[in-house]
Amino acid sequence: MPKLKFQSDHHKIFSRKAGSKPGMLFVPAEAFAPRYFLISFSEQHFEEAELPDYEQLINKVKTQPELRHWVDIRGYKDDTLMGKLASDFGLHALQLEDVLNDYQRPKVEETEGNNLFIVSRMLRWSDAQQNLNDVQLSIFTGPNYVLTLQSDYEDCLDSLRERIRVGKGIIRHRPTMYMAYAMLDVVLDYYFPVMAAISNLLDEEEQKIILVPSKKNLFTVLNLKSQLAKLRRIVWPERDKLNELLRMDEPLMPEEMKVYFRDAYDHVIQLIDLVDNHKEMTSSLVDLYTSTMGNRMNEIMKVLTMISTIFIPLSFIVGLYGMNFSHQNPETGKVYPFGMPELYQPYAYPILLVLMLLLVTLQVYFFYRKGWFRSM
Amino acid sequence: MPKLKFQSDHHKIFSRKAGSKPGMLFVPAEAFAPRYFLISFSEQHFEEAELPDYEQLINKVKTQPELRHWVDIRGYKDDTLMGKLASDFGLHALQLEDVLNDYQRPKVEETEGNNLFIVSRMLRWSDAQQNLNDVQLSIFTGPNYVLTLQSDYEDCLDSLRERIRVGKGIIRHRPTMYMAYAMLDVVLDYYFPVMAAISNLLDEEEQKIILVPSKKNLFTVLNLKSQLAKLRRIVWPERDKLNELLRMDEPLMPEEMKVYFRDAYDHVIQLIDLVDNHKEMTSSLVDLYTSTMGNRMNEIMKVLTMISTIFIPLSFIVGLYGMNFSHQNPETGKVYPFGMPELYQPYAYPILLVLMLLLVTLQVYFFYRKGWFRSM
Amino acid sequence: MPKLKFQSDHHKIFSRKAGSKPGMLFVPAEAFAPRYFLISFSEQHFEEAELPDYEQLINKVKTQPELRHWVDIRGYKDDTLMGKLASDFGLHALQLEDVLNDYQRPKVEETEGNNLFIVSRMLRWSDAQQNLNDVQLSIFTGPNYVLTLQSDYEDCLDSLRERIRVGKGIIRHRPTMYMAYAMLDVVLDYYFPVMAAISNLLDEEEQKIILVPSKKNLFTVLNLKSQLAKLRRIVWPERDKLNELLRMDEPLMPEEMKVYFRDAYDHVIQLIDLVDNHKEMTSSLVDLYTSTMGNRMNEIMKVLTMISTIFIPLSFIVGLYGMNFSHQNPETGKVYPFGMPELYQPYAYPILLVLMLLLVTLQVYFFYRKGWFRSM
Amino acid sequence: MPKLKFQSDHHKIFSRKAGSKPGMLFVPAEAFAPRYFLISFSEQHFEEAELPDYEQLINKVKTQPELRHWVDIRGYKDDTLMGKLASDFGLHALQLEDVLNDYQRPKVEETEGNNLFIVSRMLRWSDAQQNLNDVQLSIFTGPNYVLTLQSDYEDCLDSLRERIRVGKGIIRHRPTMYMAYAMLDVVLDYYFPVMAAISNLLDEEEQKIILVPSKKNLFTVLNLKSQLAKLRRIVWPERDKLNELLRMDEPLMPEEMKVYFRDAYDHVIQLIDLVDNHKEMTSSLVDLYTSTMGNRMNEIMKVLTMISTIFIPLSFIVGLYGMNFSHQNPETGKVYPFGMPELYQPYAYPILLVLMLLLVTLQVYFFYRKGWFRSM
Amino acid sequence: MPKLKFQSDHHKIFSRKAGSKPGMLFVPAEAFAPRYFLISFSEQHFEEAELPDYEQLINKVKTQPELRHWVDIRGYKDDTLMGKLASDFGLHALQLEDVLNDYQRPKVEETEGNNLFIVSRMLRWSDAQQNLNDVQLSIFTGPNYVLTLQSDYEDCLDSLRERIRVGKGIIRHRPTMYMAYAMLDVVLDYYFPVMAAISNLLDEEEQKIILVPSKKNLFTVLNLKSQLAKLRRIVWPERDKLNELLRMDEPLMPEEMKVYFRDAYDHVIQLIDLVDNHKEMTSSLVDLYTSTMGNRMNEIMKVLTMISTIFIPLSFIVGLYGMNFSHQNPETGKVYPFGMPELYQPYAYPILLVLMLLLVTLQVYFFYRKGWFRSM
Repeated sequence: MPKLKFQSDHHKIFSRKAGSKPGMLFVPAEAFAPRYFLISFSEQHFEEAELPDYEQLINKVKTQPELRHWVDIRGYKDDTLMGKLASDFGLHALQLEDVLNDYQRPKVEETEGNNLFIVSRMLRWSDAQQNLNDVQLSIFTGPNYVLTLQSDYEDCLDSLRERIRVGKGIIRHRPTMYMAYAMLDVVLDYYFPVMAAISNLLDEEEQKIILVPSKKNLFTVLNLKSQLAKLRRIVWPERDKLNELLRMDEPLMPEEMKVYFRDAYDHVIQLIDLVDNHKEMTSSLVDLYTSTMGNRMNEIMKVLTMISTIFIPLSFIVGLYGMNFSHQNPETGKVYPFGMPELYQPYAYPILLVLMLLLVTLQVYFFYRKGWFRSM
Repeated sequence: MPKLKFQSDHHKIFSRKAGSKPGMLFVPAEAFAPRYFLISFSEQHFEEAELPDYEQLINKVKTQPELRHWVDIRGYKDDTLMGKLASDFGLHALQLEDVLNDYQRPKVEETEGNNLFIVSRMLRWSDAQQNLNDVQLSIFTGPNYVLTLQSDYEDCLDSLRERIRVGKGIIRHRPTMYMAYAMLDVVLDYYFPVMAAISNLLDEEEQKIILVPSKKNLFTVLNLKSQLAKLRRIVWPERDKLNELLRMDEPLMPEEMKVYFRDAYDHVIQLIDLVDNHKEMTSSLVDLYTSTMGNRMNEIMKVLTMISTIFIPLSFIVGLYGMNFSHQNPETGKVYPFGMPELYQPYAYPILLVLMLLLVTLQVYFFYRKGWFRSM
Repeated sequence: MPKLKFQSDHHKIFSRKAGSKPGMLFVPAEAFAPRYFLISFSEQHFEEAELPDYEQLINKVKTQPELRHWVDIRGYKDDTLMGKLASDFGLHALQLEDVLNDYQRPKVEETEGNNLFIVSRMLRWSDAQQNLNDVQLSIFTGPNYVLTLQSDYEDCLDSLRERIRVGKGIIRHRPTMYMAYAMLDVVLDYYFPVMAAISNLLDEEEQKIILVPSKKNLFTVLNLKSQLAKLRRIVWPERDKLNELLRMDEPLMPEEMKVYFRDAYDHVIQLIDLVDNHKEMTSSLVDLYTSTMGNRMNEIMKVLTMISTIFIPLSFIVGLYGMNFSHQNPETGKVYPFGMPELYQPYAYPILLVLMLLLVTLQVYFFYRKGWFRSM
Repeated sequence: MPKLKFQSDHHKIFSRKAGSKPGMLFVPAEAFAPRYFLISFSEQHFEEAELPDYEQLINKVKTQPELRHWVDIRGYKDDTLMGKLASDFGLHALQLEDVLNDYQRPKVEETEGNNLFIVSRMLRWSDAQQNLNDVQLSIFTGPNYVLTLQSDYEDCLDSLRERIRVGKGIIRHRPTMYMAYAMLDVVLDYYFPVMAAISNLLDEEEQKIILVPSKKNLFTVLNLKSQLAKLRRIVWPERDKLNELLRMDEPLMPEEMKVYFRDAYDHVIQLIDLVDNHKEMTSSLVDLYTSTMGNRMNEIMKVLTMISTIFIPLSFIVGLYGMNFSHQNPETGKVYPFGMPELYQPYAYPILLVLMLLLVTLQVYFFYRKGWFRSM
Repeated sequence: MPKLKFQSDHHKIFSRKAGSKPGMLFVPAEAFAPRYFLISFSEQHFEEAELPDYEQLINKVKTQPELRHWVDIRGYKDDTLMGKLASDFGLHALQLEDVLNDYQRPKVEETEGNNLFIVSRMLRWSDAQQNLNDVQLSIFTGPNYVLTLQSDYEDCLDSLRERIRVGKGIIRHRPTMYMAYAMLDVVLDYYFPVMAAISNLLDEEEQKIILVPSKKNLFTVLNLKSQLAKLRRIVWPERDKLNELLRMDEPLMPEEMKVYFRDAYDHVIQLIDLVDNHKEMTSSLVDLYTSTMGNRMNEIMKVLTMISTIFIPLSFIVGLYGMNFSHQNPETGKVYPFGMPELYQPYAYPILLVLMLLLVTLQVYFFYRKGWFRSM
């Protein structure tokens, strides 16, 4: 039996161990082993590599201060990793705890040295299970690097990597903040296909509910409603996050960057519109389902009522003439004048048949006039 | 089968290519070839023309700085067009991206040089499909020009063009900002007939739902509800836009212009009132539909119950006297005193008929007293 | 068939001609010819007259600067009237447009020279049609005059005129602003009887819905709900208007007047409370209606089920003994021991009757125990 | 028949005469004759008396400026009373109008001379009628007196009087503002038992609705819902009133008093929580009622369907063998091989009985498997 | 019979004695005798003890000013306790009243000397009764102590005590404010398992409602809904409390502590998300329940209608041929040509059987085509 899948992402939160020390870095057991990617570039220069261990990675970053770096770590299964990151990049234990606990709302926090810690959520829609998967992308900006951390090996940032690789556009000419923006923008871009998938599913359900509604359709609609609610809970803090970024001043947020973040903000507002719109749609579909079920009930009852109304009186009539009242005194043989004399008239039977036919005709006409043959 | 048409305008958003570069100007494949219109005027002067290409257009604008110009470009299918606009009018790539992506919420943005970029949405109501079409109108104001961009060849600004042509009113005597205002005002004016069309349709559905409700009526009401929701999502940002314009200072917004924008603001508030009002109306209609369907069900069940209640007991009685209990011992011929002696009374049959008639009369009286003949 | 009357006042808005010039003064065709009333007074002096034309009116006002004047114009059907008002009282074209378009929300605007333009709506309840009529009262304050404009000849300000006439109270001793306040106060005072009328109607419907609900009752409730929604849309901007007045400073709003406007504000808040209260009441009535209809359905089904449950088994039994299984071999005449021997027992018939009576008694007892005779 | 009692307190508002002069002091006809109570005290001193007329009262207050006074007037039926109060205590006509119109929302207003005018509402719960009565308590604070006005002879302030009498606690050592606070606090204290009464009634209704729901239960729930709505409309402005008091500065609000008003504020917030909580509860009860009614309907239909499904086919079978098809040619006497030969088999009757029993068993098993015997 | 348990915690509030003196310390009769626990520590030092009486406790605290102390008092049944606390720790009577009245909303208040009074609520989920128990934890911070008061002997702070004991982490190196934070954090941590318990229960109910819904399931869902509402009423003020703490300045709130409180704030926001999410889920479950019940009703009615529609016409037919119309004149013996001649045809009986079978087949086909065999 299917399930409303709204809870699928709660187990992560609920698996949190109550009463543990704040800032304790507890690496989840099911985490992947870390992989280290590094993209280093300047306006002329570009290099990209997967490095075998953290030491080589940090070495490369430290020895090339003239380049900008995208330090891209995927998977956390290394108990010492977080400690090294904390000391090399100057990160706070509570923020690293947020990185490990993959259920943060999108948010932005200032860190020491006028840098930012940004949490985004990457969405993926699973068509088979009709639910929304989301993976956290933690971004730390620095003077000449952007550090991203994620628990999965796969993400939605490949188009961005390609843009840096080919050097097209302005990404290589801008401050590292632009790279952070570009990441947020790509992540947001992938929200729209998710929205489109939900939109199409609702569209299909609508057709089914109108034609042949079954409980499964209601179920799908209610499930999509919870997926939309989940999406809403991701998109609204995203909006607050962008708002906060827009309200920041130099040097945290260069004035020239604001036009870009405002553009991202507009996209989020569009998303919120879309989500609210589709949530309203689910309510309309529930209304439609209820009313269609009510219609079916009406149809069923109309059939029952018409058949009963026509045949029950007829059955009474034929029962009447099935009675055994004696036509004559059983002893004297004298005919009773009121002893069901109809039974002994030569044309009584055909007359009765005609009368019953007439009755049926009248009833059918009555139903027709009442509009019972019109489908509702 | 009809569809809730609320999604009709989403495909544009969903067709956006995820992961593309911000500010990348992607001209949609189905775009029209651009046509170039120019209206140039001063208090005494007026000329109007459709120009064959962009170069002639920009030439005219640049060589006549003493006139005010309405540069009116319709259709975008020219890959170089946006680039030329960017350099000639000093527009930002992200704003041109907004122009091309025809699904922006109404908004206003400051551009360089104390100019404005305004997005409005022109509405058209399709009576046949009962849905709302909206086309984006992008307006850029400049010191002596207003540049408008739209994807369609047809728009709702002809009445404004006529007003400039005949030189009636104050439009030729005011700053270019007044022209921008006049555009917003005309666009808003056309929201009211759309609202009126929806209002009339709801009015018709109400009558139908009261008299002979069918699922189609519910469907129309739910569809109009989503159209209203869509309208609401256009009108609310319109209100924010006007609010923002009213809060602007000189030189962006001349003090003398504010009374006009306040008037437009009042119109938007009226629209919001109307939309909310009609949305409430759709809820009342759904209530009415549900209750009317319930009433029909009650009527159907009353018919069934009355017929059954009257004839099922009668059928039992006539069945009773259709039993074959022997009146006498089949072997000895001795009469059984309790062997259904009623069957052998001379007046038993008419007495039974009268008793049954009496029973029916009583039942009908009971139904009458219970108010079952009163229609609900 | 009745209609939800919520739309009755929309036709005015929808009749607005789209695309017309802002501030164009379009006098509606169905307008009344203007009548000119003037009340002039000082603390000692009082005169009141209906004047035959506008020229005499303005002459009187201009030649008596030492008096305070209430210039009271009713009906607009004079194409030159608005122009004259504009020049004599210094009014803005957009405000005169608001005067003519009789569907403005209550509002207050500053005009030139520290005067105010106030829009109020006068309500009248039509008991016959159970709907709310509202007429716009446009008030312009000036240093020594108050100018009121309305489309109807009749209004609700007679009690105020009488108070000026008899000179009772403080109205003749206060600035003209007090007169404007007194108008707002009287207009608001007449909202309460409207509210009372709706309250009484809801009260009546409640009684009907509990006793003998019909679809007409639901309809009335839904109609009153839209009337309340309409009232709400008038009262809320009224609240904003008074709020704005209270936030104004000298000389627009003399400090000593604030206590009066605060009192009017309190009345509006009470009205909002009442409206919200009654709107909630309509929801409760819809709940009550639905549940009463459900109860009737239950009652109907209980009757059907009891009758069927009692008589269908009985009918089976009597049908059983109406079967024609042969008691003996038709050829040999040998009695079949299992050939329905019951039929030939002397006391079979009365025993069967008693058994059936017992069955009925048991069933009735079962229904009694299940509480089916208790009305729901 | 019971009524939703939500309107019981509206008649007071609706009885207001529209169009009357603002500040006109109209004493309601049903008012009580005034009684004059005075409590005068200092830290050492205490006296308490009911005085025969107003002159003695005011005399006592004026001649003892070194004491603090609680001037406690109950009942208004004296046309000159308000005028005397206005001149002796310096009260504004509009505030006295508020005193007489016993339907003000809780509020606080500054009066001349840094004094306060506070409106509270004293609640009483009538268990018999299950509705909320509220009486207005108008409090005017002065430098060395608190003046309270109420329309009833009975109130809920006796515990406060007792506390002053015995001189326990700090009430005699604090400024008069503390006395005003103590009144608000006592009034608020009596809201909790009202809330408890409603809570208990809802509790009882819940049990009844689960066991044997009747329309009366729904009615009680809907009535309690309107009582809660009424309570809410009293408690919310109470919150605003306390908030306003907390935001006041010296000398209106001594800093040392704020901790007390904050405590009262916390109580109001708790009340709002309770009211909202119980309002949600009423919705759950309506849901429960609806679903219980639906369950009863299901139960009824299950009985009908089981009885019908079992006996209607059986009736058909016995009807079948009640047919009179001839077994032999009536003229020739030749036996028809297909002339219902079953009727002439020696064991046909018992076999049929067994078959019918089998059918019933199968159907009962089917119903059992479908879970129809399980109560829903 | 089960009860909606939302009221379980109200009795505490309702037991409050109306009209009592503000700040009167009324120890509840059912309170436990106080137990005195003390944890004293510095970076190197640690000691922990349960002390026999209050005097020894306060003595230890006063004589060791160089240590930090956690004064942990559980149970209040000592009429003099509050007075001693007031004088030894400088607490306000109204705050001690809040301590004793165990139904305060979470809040924070400044006390004299730049200390804080914090109210938190410790939650426990009772799986057996499916309801939420909450106990108040009152925290007073001081320069070198934290004083906690609670009515129960058991709490959820043991993990915190263990952390101090082992001296792991930073708790011994930070100001006392950190200890207060650590308490809030642990208390909040235990909200998540509660949330998880509710989440699991809803999950189970969902499965049951889909498969075999009974009123008990609806009941559980409605109960969980009120538990969630209760949780919401605890978590929202918790959010306000943390917000207020974050807005505080030095010295009340050391700047370095803010990152910790912000982390706690994030947890509360997550909780609010979860609560809202699950509340929406309960609405979906009520929808699902209603629709499943409607489906069952449909199923029941389909069975009834199919059986009736098939057998009622058949019963009529067999009744028809059970009529006793005479085939011949009883006196003359002349055969009536229309005296039910069918009865005397040799193959009439089998033909009739075949026709009836055909009719049934047609009807079954009709039902199949209408989709009545498809489960809804």
